[in-house]
Amino acid sequence: MTYNSAIICIGNELLSGRTLNSNLAWLGMRLAELGLPAQYSVTIPDEPEAIAEALDYCWQRFDVVITTGGLGPTQDDLTKDVIAGYFGKDLHFNEQVWSHITSLFSQRNVPMPQSNRSQAMVPGDFQVLKNERGTAPGLYYQDAGKHFFALQGVPLEMKYIFDSHIRQILKDSYQDAQGVIVRNIHTYGVAESALAELLDLQRLPHGVSMAWLPQTGRVDLRLSGVDAHALAVAEAYVQEQVGEFIWAYDEDDPARYLLRLLKAKKLNLAVAESCTGGLVQRFLTDVPGASAVFLGGVVSYANRIKEELLGVDTAILEKSGAVSEACAIAMAQGVQKLCAADVALAITGIAGPDGASAEKPVGTVYFSWRIKDRQFTLHKILTGDRDSIRHKAAEAAILELSKSIWEE
Amino acid sequence: MTYNSAIICIGNELLSGRTLNSNLAWLGMRLAELGLPAQYSVTIPDEPEAIAEALDYCWQRFDVVITTGGLGPTQDDLTKDVIAGYFGKDLHFNEQVWSHITSLFSQRNVPMPQSNRSQAMVPGDFQVLKNERGTAPGLYYQDAGKHFFALQGVPLEMKYIFDSHIRQILKDSYQDAQGVIVRNIHTYGVAESALAELLDLQRLPHGVSMAWLPQTGRVDLRLSGVDAHALAVAEAYVQEQVGEFIWAYDEDDPARYLLRLLKAKKLNLAVAESCTGGLVQRFLTDVPGASAVFLGGVVSYANRIKEELLGVDTAILEKSGAVSEACAIAMAQGVQKLCAADVALAITGIAGPDGASAEKPVGTVYFSWRIKDRQFTLHKILTGDRDSIRHKAAEAAILELSKSIWEE
Repeated sequence: MTYNSAIICIGNELLSGRTLNSNLAWLGMRLAELGLPAQYSVTIPDEPEAIAEALDYCWQRFDVVITTGGLGPTQDDLTKDVIAGYFGKDLHFNEQVWSHITSLFSQRNVPMPQSNRSQAMVPGDFQVLKNERGTAPGLYYQDAGKHFFALQGVPLEMKYIFDSHIRQILKDSYQDAQGVIVRNIHTYGVAESALAELLDLQRLPHGVSMAWLPQTGRVDLRLSGVDAHALAVAEAYVQEQVGEFIWAYDEDDPARYLLRLLKAKKLNLAVAESCTGGLVQRFLTDVPGASAVFLGGVVSYANRIKEELLGVDTAILEKSGAVSEACAIAMAQGVQKLCAADVALAITGIAGPDGASAEKPVGTVYFSWRIKDRQFTLHKILTGDRDSIRHKAAEAAILELSKSIWEE
Repeated sequence: MTYNSAIICIGNELLSGRTLNSNLAWLGMRLAELGLPAQYSVTIPDEPEAIAEALDYCWQRFDVVITTGGLGPTQDDLTKDVIAGYFGKDLHFNEQVWSHITSLFSQRNVPMPQSNRSQAMVPGDFQVLKNERGTAPGLYYQDAGKHFFALQGVPLEMKYIFDSHIRQILKDSYQDAQGVIVRNIHTYGVAESALAELLDLQRLPHGVSMAWLPQTGRVDLRLSGVDAHALAVAEAYVQEQVGEFIWAYDEDDPARYLLRLLKAKKLNLAVAESCTGGLVQRFLTDVPGASAVFLGGVVSYANRIKEELLGVDTAILEKSGAVSEACAIAMAQGVQKLCAADVALAITGIAGPDGASAEKPVGTVYFSWRIKDRQFTLHKILTGDRDSIRHKAAEAAILELSKSIWEE
């Protein structure tokens, strides 16, 4: 069976941008896994009419409706009053909730403000979902095969209540729901539009959907569906059409991929960075255990450091400039020698906004890498602002080096 | 006058949780600044009926309506058709957009897929908002004093179009709107709960609100209101109460602050990083113009690099270990000498999850910095996962060094 769900996010701070709404993505993923994909989400202020209208719209159309936010000690009355009113219930004082709240305050050894009393009020026929991470409980109501949940806005409490109560309730209630299986396919070196031409959505098995997820400088594809066999057929089709651009699957990232390749080939790595200023090394060391293959390297931001530390010839800097193929090659040679590394990677370029010339626009980047005594070079002109040029350059360096190691 | 706005976020990936919706918070903040606060936001799948229904709901109720998402070149993007249909317009081929798209592809030196042609189709009477960050333009329509904008889902492109076109259009169109003025105050070295005790919200002038924005390892305060005088009074109160913890205001970040101090004192800087693995240097080089004072440095991830490049004594590594005050001091001395720098900063620690011991738990970090021949050291035990320990260590290093330079 096909079911769907809706998420109502309540809070002025979400609309004014003071708080990033991470609850929607978190709940959306959990609901998709349960076979109850979110088909609608609305973000509204802490206002009774807005809450009532959203509730009515969603309860009429969706199997599962979840609200987040508006259950704190200050806004409490408002959201809960509206919910109780909409479902035609009265609020009752709940002794269990009250004793949980008072015990929390005595544990923390702080006096309890009376405003907390309202948190123990529960609409009639509603079930209380105990909140071990805070004072206000989650609330649960079911009617005519539909399920309603009111949750906290604080992510820690919201997640706790979902994980310890709601997942099981929904599993039991929708046993025939088909959870979504997702396969992420990472590509590099091909534009989104070119992928779109190579992949014909009509050729995918029924029930499998494909989405393009453009990253900075590369594209991920996501296949999803409820049928594992159909998904495998779709994946084989994608492999056949665009396999040459695929470098990894699912949770992988470029740095993790490179480190795994280096480890498998028993090679260690040193890096010399100019325009990326440490970003490549940061990506590598984001990965726990990077030290098994990553030795370290140099950020040679000033020309003096390129000369003195990496031994880049003054003549190269004077003739070709710091942003040149010759300089990238010399940087790679220099850092390989300096660190006595098997593999060396070097990047020099113009991230902007300053430093460009007529021949070398902002985004000009030269890469050079060495695997033992084999040497590789690459020249790219990257687009975007400083941040995205640096990000693209760092990821391109990692993925291009990976390709060479893979092909070794 | 009071105006309001609505934001329609289009994309299956937002509902399935594969993509976190950061656009809503970003747009929400900009609209509040302009005096056009977002009062409603809905997130819907890439489906014609859902898009049309959301558009109709919002256009009837709000002064400004913005859509994000659904303008890419791929086959599932049908947003523009729905928009044109809703406003009763036909799509026309726009030569200017087309020549922008073709020039982008020729710059990148890649063949252009025909699927890009659809991006040059523009609904009649709509204005094109040129997108220097990608192919598809933003779209703008006004009618009866109301304003509609269709934007990309990719944050980089969406922000570019808002900043370079929409802000001015809205400023001109709603000159009597009361924009919210926001003042961000950055503190370091004081806990959120301690700040809350020092700052009495009752003492703020009427109409000024204050929010705590905990960052990783430090806290920002945000004052907001529509009255500039009341805001200045509030700011003076905050200064008086917690001035000793304030290091900067508004758009500033730690790296920008350090670079400004170094420039003012005519000092250059070199950095040696172990556990932060390039993160400090990355933060510094995120700032355009960093090269004026930042020379570069070393990522000495392996002990061998600490010894050979930085000249850390083998005896130190054997006796005290790589994570020690002695090693941090030797790294700072080493990188200062190696780069002939006025100021040197060194960090060594355990970011986890591996590498801890009974005496040195995960989060143990030693810092050392030198300003000419004056030497400073600091030892901290930071909490959190690998990412947040690295982030806190990098920012702490930058802010502690800044403090020493400030006090010079």
